Amino acid sequence: MSSGPAEESAPEESEQLYILTIACPDRTGIVASVAGFLADHDAFITESSHFGDALTQRFFMRTVFRLGANSPPLDRFAHRFSRIAERFHMVWGLHDAQRRERLLILVSKLDHCLNDLLYRYRTADLRVDIAAVVSNHPDLEPLARWHDIPFHHLPVSAGNRLEQEAAILALVHDLQVDLVVLARYMQILTPGTCDRLRGRCINIHHSFLPGFKGKRPYHQAHAVGVKLIGATAHYVVADLDAGPIIEQAVERVDHSFGPKELARVGRDIETVVLARAVRWHVQHRVLLNDGKTVVFR
Amino acid sequence: MSSGPAEESAPEESEQLYILTIACPDRTGIVASVAGFLADHDAFITESSHFGDALTQRFFMRTVFRLGANSPPLDRFAHRFSRIAERFHMVWGLHDAQRRERLLILVSKLDHCLNDLLYRYRTADLRVDIAAVVSNHPDLEPLARWHDIPFHHLPVSAGNRLEQEAAILALVHDLQVDLVVLARYMQILTPGTCDRLRGRCINIHHSFLPGFKGKRPYHQAHAVGVKLIGATAHYVVADLDAGPIIEQAVERVDHSFGPKELARVGRDIETVVLARAVRWHVQHRVLLNDGKTVVFR
Amino acid sequence: MSSGPAEESAPEESEQLYILTIACPDRTGIVASVAGFLADHDAFITESSHFGDALTQRFFMRTVFRLGANSPPLDRFAHRFSRIAERFHMVWGLHDAQRRERLLILVSKLDHCLNDLLYRYRTADLRVDIAAVVSNHPDLEPLARWHDIPFHHLPVSAGNRLEQEAAILALVHDLQVDLVVLARYMQILTPGTCDRLRGRCINIHHSFLPGFKGKRPYHQAHAVGVKLIGATAHYVVADLDAGPIIEQAVERVDHSFGPKELARVGRDIETVVLARAVRWHVQHRVLLNDGKTVVFR
Amino acid sequence: MSSGPAEESAPEESEQLYILTIACPDRTGIVASVAGFLADHDAFITESSHFGDALTQRFFMRTVFRLGANSPPLDRFAHRFSRIAERFHMVWGLHDAQRRERLLILVSKLDHCLNDLLYRYRTADLRVDIAAVVSNHPDLEPLARWHDIPFHHLPVSAGNRLEQEAAILALVHDLQVDLVVLARYMQILTPGTCDRLRGRCINIHHSFLPGFKGKRPYHQAHAVGVKLIGATAHYVVADLDAGPIIEQAVERVDHSFGPKELARVGRDIETVVLARAVRWHVQHRVLLNDGKTVVFR
Repeated sequence: MSSGPAEESAPEESEQLYILTIACPDRTGIVASVAGFLADHDAFITESSHFGDALTQRFFMRTVFRLGANSPPLDRFAHRFSRIAERFHMVWGLHDAQRRERLLILVSKLDHCLNDLLYRYRTADLRVDIAAVVSNHPDLEPLARWHDIPFHHLPVSAGNRLEQEAAILALVHDLQVDLVVLARYMQILTPGTCDRLRGRCINIHHSFLPGFKGKRPYHQAHAVGVKLIGATAHYVVADLDAGPIIEQAVERVDHSFGPKELARVGRDIETVVLARAVRWHVQHRVLLNDGKTVVFR
Repeated sequence: MSSGPAEESAPEESEQLYILTIACPDRTGIVASVAGFLADHDAFITESSHFGDALTQRFFMRTVFRLGANSPPLDRFAHRFSRIAERFHMVWGLHDAQRRERLLILVSKLDHCLNDLLYRYRTADLRVDIAAVVSNHPDLEPLARWHDIPFHHLPVSAGNRLEQEAAILALVHDLQVDLVVLARYMQILTPGTCDRLRGRCINIHHSFLPGFKGKRPYHQAHAVGVKLIGATAHYVVADLDAGPIIEQAVERVDHSFGPKELARVGRDIETVVLARAVRWHVQHRVLLNDGKTVVFR
Repeated sequence: MSSGPAEESAPEESEQLYILTIACPDRTGIVASVAGFLADHDAFITESSHFGDALTQRFFMRTVFRLGANSPPLDRFAHRFSRIAERFHMVWGLHDAQRRERLLILVSKLDHCLNDLLYRYRTADLRVDIAAVVSNHPDLEPLARWHDIPFHHLPVSAGNRLEQEAAILALVHDLQVDLVVLARYMQILTPGTCDRLRGRCINIHHSFLPGFKGKRPYHQAHAVGVKLIGATAHYVVADLDAGPIIEQAVERVDHSFGPKELARVGRDIETVVLARAVRWHVQHRVLLNDGKTVVFR
Repeated sequence: MSSGPAEESAPEESEQLYILTIACPDRTGIVASVAGFLADHDAFITESSHFGDALTQRFFMRTVFRLGANSPPLDRFAHRFSRIAERFHMVWGLHDAQRRERLLILVSKLDHCLNDLLYRYRTADLRVDIAAVVSNHPDLEPLARWHDIPFHHLPVSAGNRLEQEAAILALVHDLQVDLVVLARYMQILTPGTCDRLRGRCINIHHSFLPGFKGKRPYHQAHAVGVKLIGATAHYVVADLDAGPIIEQAVERVDHSFGPKELARVGRDIETVVLARAVRWHVQHRVLLNDGKTVVFR
């Protein structure tokens, strides 16, 4: 039996790190102000990434730092920073890097992505908490239970879709969920739910989007005779399979692959792509830029 | 100055090899009949690939062999084989592997694919003859001329499209062209010309089809925010960018790539993908299977 | 709880298929004889791959077929084929494609490859039987038990190495094991055991061999500053990490990856590479060619 | 005939950009000081990348900026910055991003890398000046001449190696060369010359280093039976093929590839890998970190 994520695997991460994310209109002096603020408060930068989008004139930044002996407590630190944030009209976040983001995983019957996420959780490859697994089918309860994860069977039909999604949203609220992961959930969320979960719901689509949106993409790929198949992790929006793309990957196939073989090869791509997207999201590496993403890998 | 393809680079290919390609309804005994025929005529197989498409019930085969001391002359060999071909309702071809296929390359102003094909021709990396280069602009004449390739400037406009394509088709006929290569030609051929060149005209499209058909695919890719960009080599059909796919490849990009950087990265993919497709075609490795290809790499 | 591999996932494989593998000196008439024999015995070929190695003058072939209404029973079929095999000095095998090869998986404490193989077994992605899991540590017993796989804890030390390996070989014999998989076993088998398991023991090495043989390859890779890291699945021979390579893959890394991050990225490559090698082996797609492999993918 | 690099292809780069590179011991306040200095001098940052190496405790930074209306002239700007540089013990560089680095390309007889570099130069894909091409053979003179690049034939033998390298170094000095590129030069430079060119001489090695150092790596790769082949661009040091790695890539091959086919596939990898390394170097994206590189792509 599994006893939760391994604690011993990340010893050097025991130091207290913080992650600051920023998005704002681009102009002179942003980095100077932020870095100056950090230096003035005895914060040591361990990682930093910037991006200025020449088209949208937006600036994006992610900085990881640790506080020093002369740093103020975090709340005072944050309070003071808010003045800089205001000056530059920042959308910003300050995150404790040690805090585990809380996931709610939605699945149907296919379990390759769930199995992979649970494995990474169990071995602390992915430092998250999994609040619960939800499915419209009972099949994957044993897998969740073996990892000591609560499992909720919430069947869905044409008649009860809104109620079922309300139950999911209630779980998101009650379990203090940070991120909903559609790990081959196979159901299309209603626009209202998509809006409620904007920016905190990741789906894995089993094609190289924008090719092959919608149903049975491996069959579509086979019909067209593509020589590479892919998978795409993206944030969910009301427009089906059109949300901001976080990560994609492909694998080579050939004429001898039928839909079933494409699906088999595709499973390996899907698991890796979804795991990367979840990792980057919970590490606050993904910032939204209009309908696209900035990913500081 | 270049002095035509290097002769010395392929010494072991001086032996006389033949390539037999077959497509027919699948049934028991095809391989036995073909291989038996080859053995009975003292032919030694050096390469052989098969594929039976379970869906279409079609069988595809490509076999490379050399004739032996007791083999009949090739024409008698072919004549005798035609009886087997009839029995199995084969679409078949028998090719001298030493014969260089004759290419007509169509370009516009962008020359990365042309430069690459001419380089591979000059160094015999690609064993073909290039009958001529055709362009609707005069810009690339010096490049063609330096390689001693005739260059035809055939301007095209809304008013003369049919005449211009008739001139191209005349060149195809007069120069005994086997394969027309659209190396970033940037013009859409009329349906009639597409039909005339069916199965012997390869286009490079600068996207991972079926995504981003049509104009300015790198701008389309940038707008969507994909994390990989690609290129697709395909046979030209009347339906734009929808012909049978021969080869595809992708390269990773990120949020910092504008359309111009995408185009720069894309050029390297386009040249490699087109060169592969041309190589496989002239080596008779590509067989048509309905709207798709079988590629015996 | 898991209830063994899913039976329902491979309905079309219920038809009775056989796999014939051949290696012999290359000469005229081999394919004709084999294909003729198959046709004469009403066998329908569904897949076939050949390779003639111009250097070693060896010929390799793998053919998948199903018997027909007029085919003899398999034993008579095999007996008759042995006459052809003799004539061409073939090393050959005739395998029931439905038979599940029996695996013995050796692990130490790291479980990413084991977890992956058990998942593929459980979902019939990999159609094998897992006879047992053996480890020199007790840590992974729960994982094996949850999949209903017997677990043997066989500790090893400088003093008992030969006895411990004798116990492993006894399991191989008693459990009728076809393939031993070193899924990050971390112990070097003695030359005698390597010889005993020649051609039926696959190891995953966490580097792109022949680079970084031996201990701590990710630390070696980090010290050198490579821009790609890889994994290699190979048959085990007495010469450390020098056995015939079956499969390799790499992933891009950069200067910001320490040994721990390299190991994290590497785990995903290792699992995929090992799974592919095991799949190809149990499908009889891997033939030995001197110190190398022919892999009919 | 070519008329030098196209001027029109980079219109938006006409604005005056500067590149500041820094390497120094890591400590609190570096970014704040640098960014503060830039803001105080009305410099607008368009790109910035940092890396703190936790092992060596070294900090690396590359920042691209443009000066503003209130910025001082560049020399005063640089002079003032030198005070910050001193305080943090920086190794630093301040580069005009519009200035074309001057290359000296050394070749032997193989021309795929030369052809590629000249093409990228001609089309301004690579914004450099090529001061001259040097070869120990006369074969590639026509190719250089067609691009209007001076060609120097400097034969080399056991007896004149030092004199020949002295002539090369004289060219480096007289032509004000910034970067020497060994584009399949096939000669091993003497240790003295390697030292003289430290950090400004890039070699392309046709293997995935550290595997297959030295002669005939494709033959070595074939003998081992690897499933991927690669190429490595690295700075030249006296220790053969052991200099800091800048870039690597691989391509899949299989058992059917002989040394000649490996070399053919390898050529495409070599050209792309070398072109990337040269691009990153001339854009000041590559910083030396002990025997390794930091590459801010």
